[in-house]
Amino acid sequence: MQSEYLSIGVDLGGTKTEISLIDNSGQVLHSLRRPTPVDDKGEAIEKEITNAVQELQNKAKTRIDCIGIGIAGQIDSTQGIVRFAPNLKWHNVPLQRNLEKALNIPIYLANDVRAATFGEWIYGAGKGCKDLVCIFLGTGIGGGIVSDGQLLQGASNTAGEIGHMTIDFNGPPCTCPNRGCLEAFAGGWAIAKRAQKAIFENPKQGKAILEMAGGSPENVAAKTVIQAANQSDPLARKIMEEVFQALIAGTVNLINAFNPSRIVFGGGLLDGIPEVIDILNIEARKRALEAATAPLQILSTKLQGKAGAIGAAAMAKRMLIKTTSS
Amino acid sequence: MQSEYLSIGVDLGGTKTEISLIDNSGQVLHSLRRPTPVDDKGEAIEKEITNAVQELQNKAKTRIDCIGIGIAGQIDSTQGIVRFAPNLKWHNVPLQRNLEKALNIPIYLANDVRAATFGEWIYGAGKGCKDLVCIFLGTGIGGGIVSDGQLLQGASNTAGEIGHMTIDFNGPPCTCPNRGCLEAFAGGWAIAKRAQKAIFENPKQGKAILEMAGGSPENVAAKTVIQAANQSDPLARKIMEEVFQALIAGTVNLINAFNPSRIVFGGGLLDGIPEVIDILNIEARKRALEAATAPLQILSTKLQGKAGAIGAAAMAKRMLIKTTSS
Repeated sequence: MQSEYLSIGVDLGGTKTEISLIDNSGQVLHSLRRPTPVDDKGEAIEKEITNAVQELQNKAKTRIDCIGIGIAGQIDSTQGIVRFAPNLKWHNVPLQRNLEKALNIPIYLANDVRAATFGEWIYGAGKGCKDLVCIFLGTGIGGGIVSDGQLLQGASNTAGEIGHMTIDFNGPPCTCPNRGCLEAFAGGWAIAKRAQKAIFENPKQGKAILEMAGGSPENVAAKTVIQAANQSDPLARKIMEEVFQALIAGTVNLINAFNPSRIVFGGGLLDGIPEVIDILNIEARKRALEAATAPLQILSTKLQGKAGAIGAAAMAKRMLIKTTSS
Repeated sequence: MQSEYLSIGVDLGGTKTEISLIDNSGQVLHSLRRPTPVDDKGEAIEKEITNAVQELQNKAKTRIDCIGIGIAGQIDSTQGIVRFAPNLKWHNVPLQRNLEKALNIPIYLANDVRAATFGEWIYGAGKGCKDLVCIFLGTGIGGGIVSDGQLLQGASNTAGEIGHMTIDFNGPPCTCPNRGCLEAFAGGWAIAKRAQKAIFENPKQGKAILEMAGGSPENVAAKTVIQAANQSDPLARKIMEEVFQALIAGTVNLINAFNPSRIVFGGGLLDGIPEVIDILNIEARKRALEAATAPLQILSTKLQGKAGAIGAAAMAKRMLIKTTSS
């Protein structure tokens, strides 16, 4: 089975779904991208995934061994149930059972960033490493932890919510019940919110950012701020300077708490701020405990946007091998 | 061997050393407490431990199976070397080899808070739990993490330095290269320092604390501040209020990052602030991610000051069983 092993990895997002055919070495052979047809029972999404899997199976001209699906939210991988996925408006959807019935292929569900961490660990920038932290900078900030060769799960399967570590206990409210979380400074939503607030308070200073957003403050996104900072706009630079300080503090926390040999950064926002890797390599290393930084490398993702799909497929494969060999 | 198994646990501190005879169920049968004769080569300490072990062995009237030693600092347990122990002024002392030569009993060295975590896990407030965080509030703040039934080590054996997680990235400098660490707010040294500074800036306001310290600002210790706060001194209460806020933020970090089913607090400072457990159970739980708090209990230590010795002995025993059964 091993040499011709084929799996499918699904990255099921709130706006788009990417379905990829993946070979035994973690290479993506084909990818389909579809808008996600969100409904609260999940029937349209199930149909979309079923159709895409059949299309890929036809392309492969051979049997698919298993399918891994990464989803943002609380996933019960053991039961195969999506407990809560805010982007999809799902509560307790038994996606594994439903898809296995439709496709007759073993399905494995995982949290999306946990899956992406697994992908980077098995095939990407974390390959061969026993102590790894992955951190994904997007609208929110998520992550995953590998310690002594184990992907940490936690008591209720939520370990690794490193975007919600407090880095300023008097800081701004987060979307979670806490304040001053790393995400409340450096998550995409927080960057946009800070810029919108600054523009509102000082329209003159915020003019350049506002122009880039077509004149509407509500169109100011994190990417607008990053773009403006890269063009040396003073307000955008000030905001991004604080984002970098927050990322340094968060990275120090990760180093001191987990003592990883690699920290891998990924996520949609990283593309606009590739220099953050060098900055963290200098600044976070300076401030973390010396004994903890000795073995440390800070790197950017190798699998990029494909980490989630590749990782979910790899998790499904691992589960299948475990099940069939026991 | 199991039923009559006897071990010795040593808690080797900068000022005192406690050497305990421990039975197979983790009960302390006898304890000796000696001042630690610090010298940079460690010869006097080795002699002190050797004598105490022989005294306990005479009391036990039977063979001691193994000895575990917990030491503050960077310990290479595999090589049996104390890499760096600032309190003892040791660099690269091969304590395991030296003591095995003198005593002919298997010796195991461990970091002191890691050992105390292991003790609470096997015999104390963390017993039977797969996901545990222990946090010890003393002059510094240290801790240990058990995740999915594994005590986390990290890539260079320093995982769990949770006193050095940033909780205010603009906060005061720590004794480590970072600023705004949990320890820089809630460690004993930081509490004393804040009080001393406040007294210096406003002698009138600080009068009560100063009187408790016998009139010398340099004698103001964390315990003085805690005592004054318990007697409703306004300045001490203000300082301790911030300490509690810092502990809430730090606990939220632990919950969100590790998703433990238990967090166990211990350490010398806890005795003066037992109410912190209830406060954290309410406040940290309110601010952490809901899915992460569902399985969570926050408790105080069961083994108290004996956790380190009991844990070190339990680690030694585990290592011995592993070695003899392989």
